[in-house]
Order: sequence, then structure tokens, then C-alpha cells
Amino acid sequence: MTIREEMLKLAQDARKAGRAMANLSSAVKDEMLRRMADALEKGANDLLAANELDLGAARDKGLAPAMVDRLALDEGRIKAMADGLREVADLPDPVGEITGMWRRPNGIQVGRMRIPLGVIGIIYESRPNVTADAAGLCLKSGNAVILRGGSEAFHSNRAIGDLLKAEMAAMGLPAAALQVVTTTERSAVLELLKLEEQIDLIIPRGGEGLIRFVSEHSRIPVIKHYKGVCHTFVDASADYDMAEKICVNAKVQRPGVCNAMETLLIHKDIAETFVPRIVATLRAKRVEVRGCPVTREFAPEVKAATENDWGTEFLELILAVKVVDDIDEAIEHIQRYGSLHTETIVTRDYGNSQRFLREVNSSVVMVNASSRFSDGNQLGLGAEIGISTTKLHSFGPMGLEDLTTRKFVVLGDGQIRS
Amino acid sequence: MTIREEMLKLAQDARKAGRAMANLSSAVKDEMLRRMADALEKGANDLLAANELDLGAARDKGLAPAMVDRLALDEGRIKAMADGLREVADLPDPVGEITGMWRRPNGIQVGRMRIPLGVIGIIYESRPNVTADAAGLCLKSGNAVILRGGSEAFHSNRAIGDLLKAEMAAMGLPAAALQVVTTTERSAVLELLKLEEQIDLIIPRGGEGLIRFVSEHSRIPVIKHYKGVCHTFVDASADYDMAEKICVNAKVQRPGVCNAMETLLIHKDIAETFVPRIVATLRAKRVEVRGCPVTREFAPEVKAATENDWGTEFLELILAVKVVDDIDEAIEHIQRYGSLHTETIVTRDYGNSQRFLREVNSSVVMVNASSRFSDGNQLGLGAEIGISTTKLHSFGPMGLEDLTTRKFVVLGDGQIRS
Repeated sequence: MTIREEMLKLAQDARKAGRAMANLSSAVKDEMLRRMADALEKGANDLLAANELDLGAARDKGLAPAMVDRLALDEGRIKAMADGLREVADLPDPVGEITGMWRRPNGIQVGRMRIPLGVIGIIYESRPNVTADAAGLCLKSGNAVILRGGSEAFHSNRAIGDLLKAEMAAMGLPAAALQVVTTTERSAVLELLKLEEQIDLIIPRGGEGLIRFVSEHSRIPVIKHYKGVCHTFVDASADYDMAEKICVNAKVQRPGVCNAMETLLIHKDIAETFVPRIVATLRAKRVEVRGCPVTREFAPEVKAATENDWGTEFLELILAVKVVDDIDEAIEHIQRYGSLHTETIVTRDYGNSQRFLREVNSSVVMVNASSRFSDGNQLGLGAEIGISTTKLHSFGPMGLEDLTTRKFVVLGDGQIRS
Repeated sequence: MTIREEMLKLAQDARKAGRAMANLSSAVKDEMLRRMADALEKGANDLLAANELDLGAARDKGLAPAMVDRLALDEGRIKAMADGLREVADLPDPVGEITGMWRRPNGIQVGRMRIPLGVIGIIYESRPNVTADAAGLCLKSGNAVILRGGSEAFHSNRAIGDLLKAEMAAMGLPAAALQVVTTTERSAVLELLKLEEQIDLIIPRGGEGLIRFVSEHSRIPVIKHYKGVCHTFVDASADYDMAEKICVNAKVQRPGVCNAMETLLIHKDIAETFVPRIVATLRAKRVEVRGCPVTREFAPEVKAATENDWGTEFLELILAVKVVDDIDEAIEHIQRYGSLHTETIVTRDYGNSQRFLREVNSSVVMVNASSRFSDGNQLGLGAEIGISTTKLHSFGPMGLEDLTTRKFVVLGDGQIRS
């Protein structure tokens, strides 16, 4: 079989199995997920042996230590995968939920019922835990899933997939709903991205390069976010202690992730007092501050920001700081340089909090809280399948519900149209 | 300016004006729509004069009478456009609605707020009323809109657009949020479909050829439906009178539209009595029936259906009829040949009604009602911007709400992540 034929067959099998998945009861799906969790823990030795093959190949290829670390499994990481599946089992099942039902003048009742999307393709890089996490979310929401991880994690992903599929088969469930692509041919991704009849949605998870590649080549809808350039605006009325605490948390707690702060905007009326304070605090935490001319007036030790610093996702301990005239300039700056991810205002002013909430149309908008809360788990969605900074279908962190759509249901007693 | 530059400028202007539209109050938008409605009626003479130019050109080109009729405006059609805008003004505004708000253990409150999509492009064919209808829905939902109608309707569309924009300008509103593409160059559509940074969604309205062209060439998400192959399944327990009434309405009342029935499935247990009855009734209404072998056994006057007839959207008084063994075969037939539009079961059996509702994942699924109800207005969405038979973002008839997305809003009082 050519790679094209192999991918087509795999996707057709997934499509067929997905129809059966759509009709499973929540109880059966939850039992399946819990059995899968147990199987991962019981199969830890097999997983570690498979993982060792990947790690050996990675070291031989001279992969960077950070990359090798991402790839590595250990007892703790295996337990975390298993617990992740158990948490998904505990979440409410969105499938079958009827969101609103109304009666028309002629007596028909009309409602909208949640149904699975169908077949979801996940294209990801080196972390093998994505195999279990994404499978759990897609299957719980009644979908079939095609998993295509990085070739560095080939043996690990296959071993995880085999354990999970064995549990489905043992329960008499359609194991073809879980497809792990085991060819390492690069063209496999391109072939998958053409199968618009068999696959309903593609979610790429990884660096900007992977995401651009997938969205440029896909004929299937892609849910994506390229980067998180999160802004925090400290308004004139902000409580300084709160603002400092939020800024430090947003920048320092985990700088390498997409919901960390990258640009701090400060109202000019408090620049003289707040700029020196926050700059000193951040520098004491080893943050490199790059400031606009007004920032540097009040904190001369700060390096000058260049035009390039606005809108940059540093992903490390670097922060761009700009003093703005008012909330209008803050909102304009965010519209111009932001990435529609997460923006925060720190304020005690009711009117400004409302304006910021309404007028900033990023996927997550916050008042007086750290941008680090912008993920599905922290926001209360349960586990997260990804995040979208494009507005169609989903916008922001995505949970189980975002892996469904809604059909109309109509209950009549013989009505016809006149 | 090249066509490319012209389309880019127009889309950039729309993007900027769309930001202002997003923040307008419902009261202002509704007043705008009512003034636009009045302006169409007061400007009827100008519209009719512009329309006459299009009609003259159409006749000179020898366009088919049906096409010329679609293009024609008269007092009644102008009043219908105006009333359409007034109806949209009366609909509730989805923008700003918060759909659910919950509290997290750390005290932050998390909700989801509806916001406009941004800039919507509508690509359509010859009916000039789409210009006013689509503008009304897109603007009411806080979006900017780019309208690209068929070149046959060039003068009519421009005249309608000029009247509507004049009202926006008179109210001091951003008239650039309503863009009517006035170049008749065919490349204008291709250029628009490339502007993924400026346009958030494309909705093609017209025949299958137009829709395929747009979705094959667009880098922007496209909401579409190619065709409606609607099935009605008459179950063994169906009330014959009700089944007959529903089948006649679904096939005959308006056969040229996408929610008309194209295939009738009949349970084998009632074939001997129901097949001759429904065939006779439909033939009396000049419907050409094409049947499976069992259908022809009980109604020998019926022409044999070919494999090609299953899944065909006839759009005229032709109906394919198949006798099936049970509800399973009915559902399988629909999955295999359907177009995910609208399917109906006629039954008195509670269990089968529930199975059909759950297991048939078309965009509209009905029990004991005519498929002709499958449009936004009949289902209670108010006016309809289109219909989607793809599952991402929207599935089924689309109203105002489908022109919005939801962002997360987070209200804290200083929370940081630990």
C-alpha cells in the first residue's frame, strides 16, 4: 500500500468506528477510560521499554537535552497520563445534551442537541503524553481520533496506543476509533490533511512552525493558535500591591508558556511611582525589562524597547513595558500588537473594567487576575484539547464541549408547511 | 489601483469599521436598520431605475426568463427587503450576551460573552435582495460585511448599498462597515478569498458551482452547504394519513428548494398497503416516482430507480422510493446517501423516534413534521443568513447568533496562579 492508500484506509476505518462511538452511553465511555488508565499503569514496564528505544535514538541523533526530556517517560509521568484519563472520565459528557428547546406557533418543538464532530486528527510533536490525553478527550466526546505524533516518539506512541486499543477491543468497542499513525514517513501528514471527506477537524499541537505547516496544507478546518502575546494594563486606579503581584505572577511563574505576560502597559498618571517599583521588583527576579522612552525616564536603568519588541512572544524572562495615555491607547496597542490570546486590566474603576471587558476582543479578557489562569483546566473546562485564537467554531481554551457541534431536533405531531 | 490593492483597501477599511460596529449599542443598530428600511422604500424610484439597467443588459445578453425574474425588483420586492430589515431590527441582539458564568475554587468568576466575528464576506449570485438581507444580519450582529453579488445585478446592488450606507453616514456610524464590491472583474472574488488577515468568514450563497469554486479557492473559513438530499422514513407504526400529508408537503409544496424531500424510505411491514397509496397520491400531483424493486412489486406503474437516483437532489417533481427492512437499514441508507441536511421519521413508536433523533446526525432531524420546516425562520431563529451542512462552527440553518463567537471573561480580585 502507498502512504496515500494507507492513510485513506485508516481514516475510513476511523469514520466508520466514529459512527459507533457517537452512540455509546456515557457509562460505557467512562468505564473504558478508567480501564485504559489502569492499563497504562499496569503496562508501565512495556511503556518504559518502548520509551527507552526512542530515548536511545534521540541521544544517538544528538537531540538537545530539553528535547530528550520532553520525550522521556517515567513512573510519575505514566501515572499523570493515567490520572488524566480518570479526570476526563469524571467530566460530564457533552453528547446528547439539549441546549434549549422552544415551541413554535404551529406547535412543533425545536431544540439543539450536542453531537460529536466525527473524526478528529491531532498532529503533534515530541511529548508522548499527548497520545493518551488527546485520545481521552476525543473518545469521551464520542469522536474517533487519528493521532500523528513526532517520529522521535514513534515507539512510545505506538506502545501507548496499543495498550489503549487493547482495552477497547476487550470491551467489544470499536478500537478503530483510535488510530495511531505508525508510519514515520513525513508525507503521511500531507496525505491526512487532504482527507476532507473522512476527517472533520485538525488540531495541530506544537511550535509555530508545525502549526503554519499544517494550516497551509490542510483542506480540513484547522483549529490553531500561533502564539500568545499577552498584555497586562495597569490602570491609573490600580491597587499597587495587587498590580505588582499579578505582574510578577504573569511574567515570572512560568515564562515559557503562551499565557505568560509579554507586554506591560502602564497608565501615565501612575508612571512616576509605579514604573520604578515594578521595574525594581521584576529586575530582582531576573527579568530583563525593555521600556518605552517614558518608562526609561522613570527607570533609567531599563534598556530601550525597539518597535520589534511590541508584539513579540519572548517565552523567557524578558518584558516590554510601555506607558500609555489612557485606556483608549491601551486598547489600541493591544488591537495592533496582540495575538487575540489573553489580556488583563488591573483597575479599581468600574467603568474601565467594563470597557476593557467589552472592547477587547481577545479570546480571554480578565479583570484583576493573572493571565496564567488562561487555560482550560484553570477556567473550569476540565482538561484542555488545545486553544484557539481564531474565532470560528471555538475561541480560547477548548474543552470537551468544543469537540462537539449541535444539530437541530424537531418534534412534531404531523405539522406541514403552508 | 490593481484589483488586488482595491480589495485589500476595502477589506482593511471594513476591518477598522468593524471594530467600531462591535461596540455599538443595540438601540443604535436597531434605529439604523429601521432608517435603512425607510430609505429603501423612499428610494424606490432610484432602485427601480438602477434595476432597469441590469434588466436591460440581461435581456440583451439573452438571459433565461427565470434568471431575469430573479434579478427583477418591483414595489413589492422593495417592500419585502425593507420589512426584512425591520424584522432583523426586532430580533434580540446576540452581542454582549453572557452564556453562563461560574465561580472557580479560588474565587475568580469565569463566563463566556458573545462578540461579533469581525468581517464577513458574502459571495452571491443574481438576487439583489441578498444585498439588503445579508447587510442587515451582519450589521445587527456587530460585524462589518463585504458584499459581492453577481455582475448581472451590478447596478441594483450598488444602488441598494448606496442607500444603506447613506443612512449609516447620516447617523455618524462607520459606513465602511458595509462594503459593496462594485468592480465586475472576476478576479475580485479570488483576491477577496486570499485576505485571511482581514476577513473572518466567507458565506457563499448560490448554486453548487459557486459554492465549490469559493471553497476550493478560499484561505478563509467558508460556511457552506452543497445540496439538500432530504429523506423521509415512514416507519411501520406510522399513521398513514399523517405520513401521506407530510410526504406530499415535503415533496410537492416547493420542490425546487433544498429542504424538499428527495428520497422516501418505507418500512417493509407496511409496503403492501402504504406503497400503492402514496404512489397514487404523488402521481396524482404529477410527481414522477422512481422505485426500488419492492416498491415496483406493489406499484408496478413506477419506473425503476437506478443507483444514481439515491442521493440525488432532483429539485423538481421526482422522488426516489425505497422499501427498507427496518430502522437500521433506513439510518444506514441516510448515512450513505444523505447530505447531512434534513431527515424525518414518521412514527408512533417512542423508541424508534428516540433512536432516529439520536443516531441520525444530519443538521436537522425531525419526528412527524415536514422537512420544509428546515429553515431559520420556520425554526424560530428569525431571519437566516445561510445553512451549514459542515459541522464546524455552525450546523444547520444559521441566524444572528451564528455570526458571533464567544470570548472568555474572567473577573478576579487579585488572584494569581500558584
